[in-house]
Amino acid sequence: MEDRLATLRKIILSKNLDGILISSVPNVGVLSGFTGDSSMLVVTSDAQMLVTDFRFVEQAERECSDWTIVRRDTGFYKTLAGVLSDAGVRRLGFESAHLTHAQHERLSSAAAGVTLTPLLDTVERLRETKTDEEVAHIEAALRIQETALREVMTWVRPGMTEKRVASELDHRMRLNGAEASAFETIVAAGERASLPHAQPTERVISQGDALLIDWGARRFFFNSDLTRMLHFGSVSAEFRKVYEVVAEAQTRAMDVVRPGATFAEVDAAAREHIRRAGYGERFGHALGHGVGREVHESPVVGEGNEDRLAPGMVFTVEPGIYIPTWGGVRIEDMVLVADNGVRVLSDFEKNLDALVL
Amino acid sequence: MEDRLATLRKIILSKNLDGILISSVPNVGVLSGFTGDSSMLVVTSDAQMLVTDFRFVEQAERECSDWTIVRRDTGFYKTLAGVLSDAGVRRLGFESAHLTHAQHERLSSAAAGVTLTPLLDTVERLRETKTDEEVAHIEAALRIQETALREVMTWVRPGMTEKRVASELDHRMRLNGAEASAFETIVAAGERASLPHAQPTERVISQGDALLIDWGARRFFFNSDLTRMLHFGSVSAEFRKVYEVVAEAQTRAMDVVRPGATFAEVDAAAREHIRRAGYGERFGHALGHGVGREVHESPVVGEGNEDRLAPGMVFTVEPGIYIPTWGGVRIEDMVLVADNGVRVLSDFEKNLDALVL
Repeated sequence: MEDRLATLRKIILSKNLDGILISSVPNVGVLSGFTGDSSMLVVTSDAQMLVTDFRFVEQAERECSDWTIVRRDTGFYKTLAGVLSDAGVRRLGFESAHLTHAQHERLSSAAAGVTLTPLLDTVERLRETKTDEEVAHIEAALRIQETALREVMTWVRPGMTEKRVASELDHRMRLNGAEASAFETIVAAGERASLPHAQPTERVISQGDALLIDWGARRFFFNSDLTRMLHFGSVSAEFRKVYEVVAEAQTRAMDVVRPGATFAEVDAAAREHIRRAGYGERFGHALGHGVGREVHESPVVGEGNEDRLAPGMVFTVEPGIYIPTWGGVRIEDMVLVADNGVRVLSDFEKNLDALVL
Repeated sequence: MEDRLATLRKIILSKNLDGILISSVPNVGVLSGFTGDSSMLVVTSDAQMLVTDFRFVEQAERECSDWTIVRRDTGFYKTLAGVLSDAGVRRLGFESAHLTHAQHERLSSAAAGVTLTPLLDTVERLRETKTDEEVAHIEAALRIQETALREVMTWVRPGMTEKRVASELDHRMRLNGAEASAFETIVAAGERASLPHAQPTERVISQGDALLIDWGARRFFFNSDLTRMLHFGSVSAEFRKVYEVVAEAQTRAMDVVRPGATFAEVDAAAREHIRRAGYGERFGHALGHGVGREVHESPVVGEGNEDRLAPGMVFTVEPGIYIPTWGGVRIEDMVLVADNGVRVLSDFEKNLDALVL
């Protein structure tokens, strides 16, 4: 966190600002360690303040010992204007994708002498690289979700609905220590797996169905995200072929992961393999996304992202092939960019025969 | 929904606008029936358009048959500007509490000839009064959460943690048909009940503890929200006294609910009783809040809200007494303003002796 604040201070200087206002809840959380909400940060070259209300003062003092905690008295923006004035801030950067138009108007009017400069994705970019502690939190979430699916695999059987399986998996994650599911669990049987973001329905699982499960856990406020295919009964030749194409595409993408490669190159390694196998039109989403305090965060691992991988980045690698009325296959794992290659953070079998129930 | 749109069109005229842009997901959902996201509505005096992307076109056409569905081609705001131009909109109202500063800038630049007028809470106010169908959805959610707690009451016992009870209750709601919990379930044992919004912890429930449970379900995208106190073993005289004060405060507030009363009057009926009993300083929050597509929505049932109740409004009545290091009592039910009084929508025992396990 020290490093991110130091980088933020360099950005303040380089943009000729006196300070930055951070209003996004996950950005506040990652920079300060605060786990509440309804609070904002002001960072200047030599000071750092967290502005909150009576509900959170005690918690903020406990969680953010390096920060000056300011309790709002009357209006939030009036208090904020006082903080800016005391800190000598006349040119303030703000998060334009997180401050609403109404909040911006209130701030402009309360801090009339301050020039407001919109900033986009500033803290989001700093969050792409995880600290060791954050990686440990993500790994804790992964262990929970993996254990939960292993438990569900001993229990699930044809005749159950997608919804019932999703409920059980969510419950098992909680029982294994998750604070919550990282997102609404996807369980899609048979032909329904052709929808990349299917919500679970009353569709009953039959013998012969494949089952796409996309699930994740939240632990210590950090998230994890995996996808596996289960299969009930004998596997058709076509399913096996599609599965092997997706699995090989994932392997090829992971082989490209190292510091200095671009996200577009990682995406292309998987996409090119799927295209050559004749399924190019059937892979309609990016290969992956960053995961951390938010389950979907920067970067996008996709075509057109020419940014380069750096050690400490954590993201998903999740190629898929989706064929309307037939079904779909997605395999998703999480990787960490290591100093000289890739470290796969997830640990769940993906050999198809091990996933046949 | 027809009525809300008609009212919205009157507001357009009265504010001398040509149309309104709706960008808040729940506002889009309540006005159009759409259950996806990443979409916005444009309403003019004689047209209504839903702008969405390829992922949601089919769903929007199915769910919103009275709306013109526009699929974005290149940029979202460019498509939106085309819609505004085709509809002859030169003066557009927008939701300033929901459009971010960055979105506002993009819209301003894409629709350069359009004057943008900020509006606050316009659709939120229209949502305060529920349709019969919405009340039925809320009642369905209530039946689910009530059944789930009754099941948990036959299972819960001293030695379990708050977290374990919360997980079980969430799971039972899903098994009984909830799409999800309406919010993060609160389970607070003993002295922890003095925190109005305690998150469940590893605190173990002991014989002699009271247990505050604040929970809710979501069904058909509508929410419910109740609080009950369970009690393990014999009840102290002090607990019984506090409980009876809160229960009587709730009854008095419900007795005031009828069309034409003000929200402040409803709040005062409960607050005055608690004050006279000597606990005035221990009831630090508003008496209630609207519940619907969002679990916390307009109106605030509290001091200072001089708006008047109208038939069809649905809100919580939840007085509480919180005593640091000792504990707390809150009793929360949901009511509907009927044509000539109150209809209590929730149906869960609150006689203290029936809640002792």
